[in-house]
Amino acid sequence: MAEWGKHLAGVEGLVLDISGVLYDSGGEGGGVPIPGSIEAVKKIKTSGLKLRFCTNETQATRDKFVGKLQHLGFDIGVDEVTAPAPAACRILKERNLRPHLLIHDDLIPEFADIDRANPNCVVVGDAADNFSYKNLNAAFQVLIGLENPVLISLGRGRYYKETDGLKLDVGAYMKALEYACDIQAEVVGKPAKMFFQSALKEMGIEPHQAIMIGDDIVNDVGGAQHCGMRALQVRTGKYRPCDEHHPEVKADGYVNNLAEAVDVILKQLHK
Amino acid sequence: MAEWGKHLAGVEGLVLDISGVLYDSGGEGGGVPIPGSIEAVKKIKTSGLKLRFCTNETQATRDKFVGKLQHLGFDIGVDEVTAPAPAACRILKERNLRPHLLIHDDLIPEFADIDRANPNCVVVGDAADNFSYKNLNAAFQVLIGLENPVLISLGRGRYYKETDGLKLDVGAYMKALEYACDIQAEVVGKPAKMFFQSALKEMGIEPHQAIMIGDDIVNDVGGAQHCGMRALQVRTGKYRPCDEHHPEVKADGYVNNLAEAVDVILKQLHK
Repeated sequence: MAEWGKHLAGVEGLVLDISGVLYDSGGEGGGVPIPGSIEAVKKIKTSGLKLRFCTNETQATRDKFVGKLQHLGFDIGVDEVTAPAPAACRILKERNLRPHLLIHDDLIPEFADIDRANPNCVVVGDAADNFSYKNLNAAFQVLIGLENPVLISLGRGRYYKETDGLKLDVGAYMKALEYACDIQAEVVGKPAKMFFQSALKEMGIEPHQAIMIGDDIVNDVGGAQHCGMRALQVRTGKYRPCDEHHPEVKADGYVNNLAEAVDVILKQLHK
Repeated sequence: MAEWGKHLAGVEGLVLDISGVLYDSGGEGGGVPIPGSIEAVKKIKTSGLKLRFCTNETQATRDKFVGKLQHLGFDIGVDEVTAPAPAACRILKERNLRPHLLIHDDLIPEFADIDRANPNCVVVGDAADNFSYKNLNAAFQVLIGLENPVLISLGRGRYYKETDGLKLDVGAYMKALEYACDIQAEVVGKPAKMFFQSALKEMGIEPHQAIMIGDDIVNDVGGAQHCGMRALQVRTGKYRPCDEHHPEVKADGYVNNLAEAVDVILKQLHK
């Protein structure tokens, strides 16, 4: 057995990245499951381990995103997914923050039960066409008018690819607002510590009781470890062999795929 | 005589900031001359000293801006003004750069004789309403498609005030593009070294032969000194008494206004 599999005492839950771990996105049906992952999720659910899915998806509500995964065959519910928008909502409530929203129209329903009157912070997401000069100024004016400006950014991506070309992601607009107001945004989403903490809080367990499984050496593995969790990297999705020699991040273990990771974990815990 | 006035040997030209030195902007007529400045400009012109005006104005062409100053009574011509857009044009020509323009419509005439086919750089100015998601993506796509992306920014201001509120300035959008492409913009405009160098080149003199006179301790005085020029700060415009104890920049001299500076300089040079 791999070395990492010998030190699983006390593990009570798993946190799974979605894209690149459960499925590969893109294509006509919106993506294809990674072999063995549908069954691996089922095994976790019958094992007694707690389970949480943790994604940086912000272009749709959880409802829509989870619907796609269910259609692909996954046993997954909306309430099991930690995504930036709901995590931001929790932070807003905890700190009595009333956001001015600069986000995509499709994401607005996620903030339905949040008080937005007389805003005392700004939440910026991947707003796409909503990133107009007018809308950006409106968000800026809210921030610059606050004694203690709070900017919450749903991710910090630079850009992403769409069928008609590369598009600026939320991180670029976050930087514009940071510079204009001379502030630092609070990033919700991997690799932010508070994002993983949100997932753990939902599960009701401590960092040392959880294992993160992801395909991104920095945002999944490094982020989770920085939060005090153990983390495995799968050799699927965006994994590249050079990740195993990353200059700053070393996973607690490397596995060929989610199925292998789950088999080792369950075998060890049930001994 | 002030100490700085004793060391003027070799001075052949003056570089004057406009706003806060010649006039205070705003109000119904677009501004009011600072007492003595109209006469001071006339005195410089009859003295034999070379003269250049150096401004960060980018919301209008030099034609329009200079027309306002002439209307206020100043002896000033378009060809005597160094502004970011024309300075950028010089750089573009020198380096065979063909810009994709992300600027205000009113500034486009400044680039009339610049080849813009098959762009190999981006010039960003205070584009105001032209800062749409679509236009910003178009500029980004040009940059990210270049082997050596060149971004030229007409200033690096954070924001400015208009009658209907604060507005994001070009610096915020510059930062968005810098972050998305992982590059550093080349800033044209004070305090950039190459901006002052453009002004000196127009005058045909070396830095040690020129004196900058401005009201901004960092962008005028510090920028000019960094370029090898001497620099005086006037106690008009945005001047504040604490500027004379600035932690990083010390002017070569402080004068009550442009008129006093010119009187001292001419008296010394004509001895």
